[in-house]
Amino acid sequence: MPDPRFFPPGPPLSLGELAALAGCEAPPAEVAERRFGSVAPLDQAGPDDLSFLDNAKYRAALATTRAGAVVLKAEEAERLPQGCVGLVAADPYRAYARMAAALFPPPAPHPGVDASAVVDPTARLGEGVEVGPLAVIGPEVEIGPHSRIGAGTVIARGVVIGAACRIGPQVTLMACRLGDKVVLHPGVRIGQDGFGFAMSAEGHLAVPQLGRVLVGDDVEIGANTTIDRGSGPDTVIGPGCRIDNLVQIGHNVSLGRGCVVVAQVGLSGSTRVGDFAVLGGQVGVAGHLSIGAGAQVAAQSGVMADIPPGVRVGGFPAQPLKEMWRQIAVLKRLARGSRDST
Amino acid sequence: MPDPRFFPPGPPLSLGELAALAGCEAPPAEVAERRFGSVAPLDQAGPDDLSFLDNAKYRAALATTRAGAVVLKAEEAERLPQGCVGLVAADPYRAYARMAAALFPPPAPHPGVDASAVVDPTARLGEGVEVGPLAVIGPEVEIGPHSRIGAGTVIARGVVIGAACRIGPQVTLMACRLGDKVVLHPGVRIGQDGFGFAMSAEGHLAVPQLGRVLVGDDVEIGANTTIDRGSGPDTVIGPGCRIDNLVQIGHNVSLGRGCVVVAQVGLSGSTRVGDFAVLGGQVGVAGHLSIGAGAQVAAQSGVMADIPPGVRVGGFPAQPLKEMWRQIAVLKRLARGSRDST
Amino acid sequence: MPDPRFFPPGPPLSLGELAALAGCEAPPAEVAERRFGSVAPLDQAGPDDLSFLDNAKYRAALATTRAGAVVLKAEEAERLPQGCVGLVAADPYRAYARMAAALFPPPAPHPGVDASAVVDPTARLGEGVEVGPLAVIGPEVEIGPHSRIGAGTVIARGVVIGAACRIGPQVTLMACRLGDKVVLHPGVRIGQDGFGFAMSAEGHLAVPQLGRVLVGDDVEIGANTTIDRGSGPDTVIGPGCRIDNLVQIGHNVSLGRGCVVVAQVGLSGSTRVGDFAVLGGQVGVAGHLSIGAGAQVAAQSGVMADIPPGVRVGGFPAQPLKEMWRQIAVLKRLARGSRDST
Repeated sequence: MPDPRFFPPGPPLSLGELAALAGCEAPPAEVAERRFGSVAPLDQAGPDDLSFLDNAKYRAALATTRAGAVVLKAEEAERLPQGCVGLVAADPYRAYARMAAALFPPPAPHPGVDASAVVDPTARLGEGVEVGPLAVIGPEVEIGPHSRIGAGTVIARGVVIGAACRIGPQVTLMACRLGDKVVLHPGVRIGQDGFGFAMSAEGHLAVPQLGRVLVGDDVEIGANTTIDRGSGPDTVIGPGCRIDNLVQIGHNVSLGRGCVVVAQVGLSGSTRVGDFAVLGGQVGVAGHLSIGAGAQVAAQSGVMADIPPGVRVGGFPAQPLKEMWRQIAVLKRLARGSRDST
Repeated sequence: MPDPRFFPPGPPLSLGELAALAGCEAPPAEVAERRFGSVAPLDQAGPDDLSFLDNAKYRAALATTRAGAVVLKAEEAERLPQGCVGLVAADPYRAYARMAAALFPPPAPHPGVDASAVVDPTARLGEGVEVGPLAVIGPEVEIGPHSRIGAGTVIARGVVIGAACRIGPQVTLMACRLGDKVVLHPGVRIGQDGFGFAMSAEGHLAVPQLGRVLVGDDVEIGANTTIDRGSGPDTVIGPGCRIDNLVQIGHNVSLGRGCVVVAQVGLSGSTRVGDFAVLGGQVGVAGHLSIGAGAQVAAQSGVMADIPPGVRVGGFPAQPLKEMWRQIAVLKRLARGSRDST
Repeated sequence: MPDPRFFPPGPPLSLGELAALAGCEAPPAEVAERRFGSVAPLDQAGPDDLSFLDNAKYRAALATTRAGAVVLKAEEAERLPQGCVGLVAADPYRAYARMAAALFPPPAPHPGVDASAVVDPTARLGEGVEVGPLAVIGPEVEIGPHSRIGAGTVIARGVVIGAACRIGPQVTLMACRLGDKVVLHPGVRIGQDGFGFAMSAEGHLAVPQLGRVLVGDDVEIGANTTIDRGSGPDTVIGPGCRIDNLVQIGHNVSLGRGCVVVAQVGLSGSTRVGDFAVLGGQVGVAGHLSIGAGAQVAAQSGVMADIPPGVRVGGFPAQPLKEMWRQIAVLKRLARGSRDST
């Protein structure tokens, strides 16, 4: 079960309550009152733990789990071991997420400004805002109600933060506006100068970067990720985007709604990404391109041309995934032949 | 126009003044006194905005722009819409940079040491130095006149910083010397131990890293970039280099003058890069190599051998760009053939 | 020689002492009392400097070095120039490391808590702990004896740190336990939420991340590297691992003993890496995979399948290194042929 040192559990909940809050099918009446107070992976769970099966790769662990109850799809239920209750959900991972969040509520907020923080008198903080130790809040900053600012975070002049945001420690924010419920992990850098300069052998000349970063509601951004402000247009992160750690987003990039950007991706300046597109880890995208809504780019790909909506691409340069695999197969075959003939 | 919350405009300037300060051809006398106070991209500009055309990709936007004046090359001038003044420049991007910097002057410095900063009494700060809130300046540090140190930045014992540098928030500096006019964005890490150890199954043994990082004049380094100090030799960043975000520079690497290193590049230890070389995003370079002056390495390439001066390479392993494209084409053709035959 | 501004030398040591502490063969009696107080690379060393030859690439520098003594393998000794003493070692790099560490001892600790640090009264600090300026130590944190916490570092509630650790400036730690002698460079992020959410067009739903990060003894982690905490299982970094800068380690990843992870590697969630495996720079590894003990993955590879123990792989997708090179050669040949025929 989760280490109570870091994740103090809330009060246990009955299977009936858990199923209801997660939108699962109601459990059989004879077990609906059984209470669970913890969660664990299938292979580590005991009779008092709730677990889940989502990735078929872990199906073997279901047959031998000692978990008291498991959230799973209907078609997996027949594999449940004796005595283990199945909670059937259309999307077990999502259902589990709701249950785990109910069993392990996030730490209570501590509204107020830590005595060691440095807050400019012209900054405006909403009701219930929490400012951690040694944070720096600049002039004319606005922070919406119930947002939390982590220790050591630096917020520059004029930045606007919505309601119920959770800004981690040691983040730096400048020239940006964040919506509501934005989550920023430690070391995120938003709004610094983009990489804009006129190249020349006499010396590269910096071009003033006069745009902002606009971050929509319910965006989550991973540790040490960097998002440069626009050069004139804004850099835009659409609502609901999920951005992983160590991602680089250049000036003027725009992401639509709900995009998923995995760790270490690099998006060059002025590229536009459509709603719900997915970029795998370490993908690189050249500048001034358009990636269509719902497109999926396989990990490590190098995107050098526009991608139509809904298309899945991979490789270097990125191309339709089937072509990529065919090329890999052809080359492998040729190399085998070459070995045989030598 | 730029959001005045973040970019307060200076006084408007006449086209004559703008052309003069940027080295453009003088505008026709009848418009030389027209004043402009703002800038905007072609597709967003109005009659009071100055804009520019540099990348031919945006040429279509010229014909329909509502901008009052546009900086562009002579050969584009015929495409200017009615009533829009053309300011002709050999390098429009560079000219625009100078104009925008004049119209939106950077925020005025606030010389002095913030009361919350922790400055060792043996540190020596030049005239007009600005030290932000909660910065930490260690013993025997020297900071040249008019340099600015961001909030929360930590400068370790003995570091030397030149004049007129702009060090962003939450930077860490150790064992390094910076020239004049160096710009460091948030989260830059300079001078920590390089990745040097003697490997062994008994346990890897750290090798003392006894070199420094020497950063030349007029260098700009992007957010969360890491530059390790030398192991014995120094790590050297030549004057005028432009380094983007999330770049890794290993110990003993040396960059010449004016190199351009795009985001997420990794340079392994002891590699030498010649003057004005350009490394595209996510390029990786193995250790102990030499990249010639003026060489250009395409994004995502993997460099495993020396590159002669002036050569353009790409791919994995990196090879002359034409060969890379030819290989890509051949493989594509072979895969198509293989599909047809199955 | 190392810049005394940053690396103040300790007292000089005799060749006899140096050889003894590094486990080299004893030097000839007539030179055993010669004292050395500094070190330098072969091409920069003078008669009072100790140097070393480890990488054969630098062999040419041996013949012309002016170093007073050089640590090297027996088979290189014949190339020593006149008057230069050879100190013969089976592993010259390891021997040099010990000598250099003796000649340039690390700065003395300054036990105690800086007056500007913010330490929760419930935190427990061992004997001789050093807490730098403006560090933040949260409730119930435990720090073992003689560990050092850098300026501005933020340690969240409940984190446990072993003895004799060296935590650099501006590190953030949460939901983790570190062993003894752990070294963290600036900007390391450990224990933030992993990239876990249930995707859906209605909006991605965060899945509570209820595991920890467990870091073994004698681990070193590079600047701005990010290690997410487990989602339920823990993320585990085995003892003796060496992790370079800007590496991303996803939730539930486990590394065995002594793994070497070069800069900018990305390890996706739930992947397991065996003892002493080596991952080259910019390698990407997909999730839920197993990389065997002693496996070696060449720089920039994309690993999409399990790798057996001891195997060397490379390329995209990663395959045995010989096959990768054969494919590269075949494709090169085909492209040449295609050029000739056109």
